[in-house]
Formats: sequence, structure tokens, C-alpha cells
Amino acid sequence: MAEPPPPDVAGFACPAPLRDRPQIVMGHGGGGALSQDLLEHIFLPAFGNPVLDQRGDSAVLDVAGLLADGGRLAFSTDAHVVQPLIFPGGSIGELAVNGTVNDLAMSGARPLSLSAAFILEEGLAIAELAGIVSRMAAAAERAGVSIVTGDTKVVERGRGDGLSITTAGIGVVPAGVELGPRQVQPGDAVIVSGTLADHGMAIMSVREGLAFEAAIESDTAPLAGLVAAMLAACPWLRLLRDPTRGGVATSLNEIAAAAGLGIEIEEPAIPVSPVVASGCEILGLDPLQVANEGKLLAIVPADEAQAVLAAMRAHEHGRQATLLGRVVAEHPGIVVMRTALGGSRVVPMPIGEQLPRIC
Amino acid sequence: MAEPPPPDVAGFACPAPLRDRPQIVMGHGGGGALSQDLLEHIFLPAFGNPVLDQRGDSAVLDVAGLLADGGRLAFSTDAHVVQPLIFPGGSIGELAVNGTVNDLAMSGARPLSLSAAFILEEGLAIAELAGIVSRMAAAAERAGVSIVTGDTKVVERGRGDGLSITTAGIGVVPAGVELGPRQVQPGDAVIVSGTLADHGMAIMSVREGLAFEAAIESDTAPLAGLVAAMLAACPWLRLLRDPTRGGVATSLNEIAAAAGLGIEIEEPAIPVSPVVASGCEILGLDPLQVANEGKLLAIVPADEAQAVLAAMRAHEHGRQATLLGRVVAEHPGIVVMRTALGGSRVVPMPIGEQLPRIC
Repeated sequence: MAEPPPPDVAGFACPAPLRDRPQIVMGHGGGGALSQDLLEHIFLPAFGNPVLDQRGDSAVLDVAGLLADGGRLAFSTDAHVVQPLIFPGGSIGELAVNGTVNDLAMSGARPLSLSAAFILEEGLAIAELAGIVSRMAAAAERAGVSIVTGDTKVVERGRGDGLSITTAGIGVVPAGVELGPRQVQPGDAVIVSGTLADHGMAIMSVREGLAFEAAIESDTAPLAGLVAAMLAACPWLRLLRDPTRGGVATSLNEIAAAAGLGIEIEEPAIPVSPVVASGCEILGLDPLQVANEGKLLAIVPADEAQAVLAAMRAHEHGRQATLLGRVVAEHPGIVVMRTALGGSRVVPMPIGEQLPRIC
Repeated sequence: MAEPPPPDVAGFACPAPLRDRPQIVMGHGGGGALSQDLLEHIFLPAFGNPVLDQRGDSAVLDVAGLLADGGRLAFSTDAHVVQPLIFPGGSIGELAVNGTVNDLAMSGARPLSLSAAFILEEGLAIAELAGIVSRMAAAAERAGVSIVTGDTKVVERGRGDGLSITTAGIGVVPAGVELGPRQVQPGDAVIVSGTLADHGMAIMSVREGLAFEAAIESDTAPLAGLVAAMLAACPWLRLLRDPTRGGVATSLNEIAAAAGLGIEIEEPAIPVSPVVASGCEILGLDPLQVANEGKLLAIVPADEAQAVLAAMRAHEHGRQATLLGRVVAEHPGIVVMRTALGGSRVVPMPIGEQLPRIC
């Protein structure tokens, strides 16, 4: 008997592995397993090339002899659709700058320049646009980058979302710096630069109208300076990743899968501020799965961990840096957490984002 | 008496020159005078830096010694919100690739790599996404660029627009190539690479359900190869511009203003295909104000014009290249058209776009 014809829209077919869910759902934007589905079955098969296949936070271009000093060019982009546009500790403007600066920094790059493309909804108050743009400019100044090119489009009322901002950025990875999952070794230390889940809980608290005993503010911050300090302390860092959408759980699972190694983390070592911890408890959220916008994970050689931690703690964005766990040869691709009570459990890759529209 | 307080939204004020229209309207995205308002009163004051102030289609970075061969890096971005997503002759996928490739090419750059950021609306058919992505990949292949990094976000049903794509691109401007309004001289020739208004009329015909005696197809095409051929024929081209939103009228007015010179064009020389001409007539549109997505304007030294035209006509995207007019010292900043009947009229800068959501 012949196969039934594939679903068909405007003459196009849905790739076979995605046919049981033939429409976009919110989780496809969450950075977890559903986002991976789109990447693996739509974007990589169509665009596939060695640079994209690295799946880093930014692309590092292998154009031999392009840069004068033997460095390599890093290139990255992020679309931002956070709601609300302004929240405790920041706005879509700071996220749009810091998100791309941080993606560049995670490749070891010194960010050079950003582009900014705005999609505005008819009816947006010009005052709000102007205010967000000025916060964006201040964030660029703090991060030490220029916004050198841009574009603006407008969509009809009811077809958009107030304001979305897509930034792209370019930076220079210094000669000799080579970060990536292939560098990761069993025994390496896993470091986190500070408390987890602040950004996600800040968004959640304003969106749900929750009042905690203290205000929860987004941690949005540019991390290129911190990365430069870490590279100065240890030029042979193995890998950096900023745990945004999907949180630390997603990033650690991605690292374990890409490196083909296991990761063990210690539950008592997970840094969460008391107010964020109680907020997560009330809402039933796992802080490991909640988004951060000013934190990084670093995989470093075990015997360099203390030097890297010292360099991080001397930097304003790494004061609470701490050792979170280690890379192991066992259970490749799996992240395991040792609990305070001596047990252990698998830290799964989240399916979607617990909280849509987080960045 | 004290001034009344400025309009205030979320603690932000509307810049004074924009206060009589304190909300975004469709025309702010049209690329004409209203778009210039946003640029001058919001974006440039906030982000202002020498590269952004050039206001080119792409930024050319002046980082001394960055590139090995003395070239300079070009960087550009474009957000795409066209409706419908698929139209005669192309789709948002081809536009997203060719739009950024062409912005890079207008600075004289050889495009290297693109980023692509997708904002998807919940409910979008995966088949449609897959189809558009595959058209995008084919366009990148034709243009000779790789898509090396990307991002995907999802917004709730009713808060988006199906699919929008923002691309950014980087390219290399060869050493010695220096295009821009400062190069433009009185007496220079103004060349256009082919027929005008095809893209805008293709969108209009499907959106309005108009049937003409022949199908009107978008001219979307990558122009970097044409530019390379033109630079080979005449390395001292003065300026290139692709007349997209707002059409040739907008681009020529921008060139005249930036160069501080006048431009004269000859009405009988304006190349418009018969079917597009009759479509424009029926709809009361001026083909000079309608968008193109695969055409360029070139300002070249007068005594090189024939050599450049010959090189263009030998290239698939320049077969119908023609001399449109000349740069003059008179009426600086003003574009004048000499009509077929021997009269003349000013070609004004359009206020917004005659047709919103064109690219």
C-alpha cells in the first residue's frame, strides 16, 4: 500500500520526524529539546556547514588569513521578544545588547560591533521606543561596543508585539584561544559565575504580579570583561557557555552531549539567592531550568580552577563564582546531581522553557 | 509660565520634534521621511558614532589593521516582515538572504557569512517554515554565502505575524575600494541596473488579488557578483545603493542630500516593463517610489559610464542596465526629472512607503 501523502502547506512538506506536531508551539522557542528538534530537522539540514554545525553560542569563522594578527572572527545573533519590555533590573534594550555581547564572549571573543534591527508594532508609544533605545545605548557603552548598523520595520497593530529587537555582533577571538566541547576532558572543573535564576524569576514576578519579601532583579550584564579576566588567568579555558533560556540544566546537557562525557554537579554548591529560592519553591520551578542573563558556566582544567575562581571573584560580574561540579568519563551525555542527602539524580534536558518569552 | 510636561510613557519622554505624532505609524517603516525621523531623533542621538553616522546600507568598520590584506570589514542587518510570506518570484527567505547580501555589496564588499534570527508565531505550520528555510538555503547557495549562526524565538498566537526573519551579514571590502557620498562629483553618471518596481508590484498584485495580462514577478536577486564585475571594470566607482523600500526616489534623494549635490534624471530613460507600467498606472503608483529587491543605482565617473554599462550588461543581473541621469552642481540636495515633453519637476522624498510590509 502506498504511504499517505505528507502534510502539505503552500506546497511544502513537514519533515518526517516532526509530523506528529506539525505546528509551532511555544516550547519551540524555549531553547530545550523542542528547539533542538527545529535545529536538527529544519535548520541544520538546510543550512548545514562546518561553522554552523559547531552549534556554539556564536560562530567562529575559519577564514584562513582573514584577520591581521592571526585571530579569528566571531559572529552571533539573538532575537529578543521578552514580555514585559521593561522589568526589574533591565529592559529588552539591555538584553538585546548583553545577549549578543555574551554570546560573543562565550567563544572567547572581544566584542567589536553590534547591529540592531527593530520590528515595531503600529501604535507603540514613541516615548517607550526612545526610552528603550537610550537604555540600549547605555548598555552598549557599559559593554564597550558600538552599534554601527541597523534597520527598522513596522507591522500593523495586532500583528506584532510592541517591539522586538534582533541584534547581531562581531568580535575577535585572540590567536591561541580555542574554546569548545572538543577541549573538555574528564576531571575538568565546572564553575558557575554567580547566583542562578535571577532573570527568569524577575520576569515571572512582574508578569504574575507576585510580591516577594525583597525585589528580584534581572542579572542582565555584559560578560566580556569577566571572560577577558578569566583568559588572562588561564588562557587554556576549555569551554564557556551562558545559561540563558532553559537555564543551567540545558547548557550542561548540551555540553555533556557535545563533549561525549558525563557531568556531575553538587546540589549544595548550586548558588541561588534566598529570595529567588523561595520564589522558585512557591512556583514549583527548578532554578537549574530558569534563565540567567548575566552568568556563565566555565569548564576549566582542574588544577587551574582555583586560579580562575580567584580571577572571577575579583571581577564585578564574578564575585559569587563557585565550583559547581566536575566532568567525568562515566555516563557520557548525562548530567547527574549529587543531592545534599547523599543521593543522586539525573538532571534532564528541559523540553521547552518553563516560562515563555523570557528574553 | 512653565512648559507643560512632555508626554510620558513608562517614565520616558517622546523627543520634542516627534511630539505631534507620539505613536508609531506604518510609515515609520517605509524607508522615507518618517523613517528618517526615527533615525535622526531617536537612533542616531542614542547610538551615534562615526560608523553609524555614515548611514550607508552597511557599516564599514574602520578598525585599523583588523584585516590581514588591508581590506575593511562590512557589517549589515535587515529585518524582514513581508506579507504574504510567499509571492510570485520569491519568498521572505530569498529576501532575507538577498537583502543583506545586497546591503553588503553596496559598500563594495564581498559577502562572507550571514546570521539568521527567526521570530515564529505559535501555530505556524512547520511545513511552511521548512519550505521557507529551504528557499533561504538555496538563495544563500546562489549568493555564495554561508548562514553560520542563528536564533529562534516563538511568540504567542496573535502576538506575531507568522514568521519574521532578521539577517545580518559580514563581508570584506577589498583594499582600495572606497564608496560613498563624499566620492560623488558633479558630472558623474547615474546608472540603474534594470527595470524598476517589479518587486513592489509583484507583492501588490498578489495582495490585492490583481491579475495583469502577464504575471509580475519579484526581482529579488543577489547583486554581489554584479558589483564585483562593475568594480573590475572601474575600481573607482563613486557610490552604489540598492533602491528597496521607498524606491529610486528615496535613494536618489538620500544620495543628493548626503553628497550636497543635485541629481537630474531623464524620464524617458526610466526602465519599467510594460506590465509593471500598466499596473502602476491602474493603481496610481509612481514606479520611482516602488520597491526593488534586485536592482542597484551606481554613481560613476562620466568617462567610465560606458565601460561600466558594458560590464553590467554582460552580467545576468545587469542585462538591462541603462544611463538614468547625472549629478549636477545646481540645486544641491534636490532630484529633478526632465520629462518626455521637455519640462522638469522635482522628484520628492516619499513620506512613507506607498505599500507597507514590502520586505
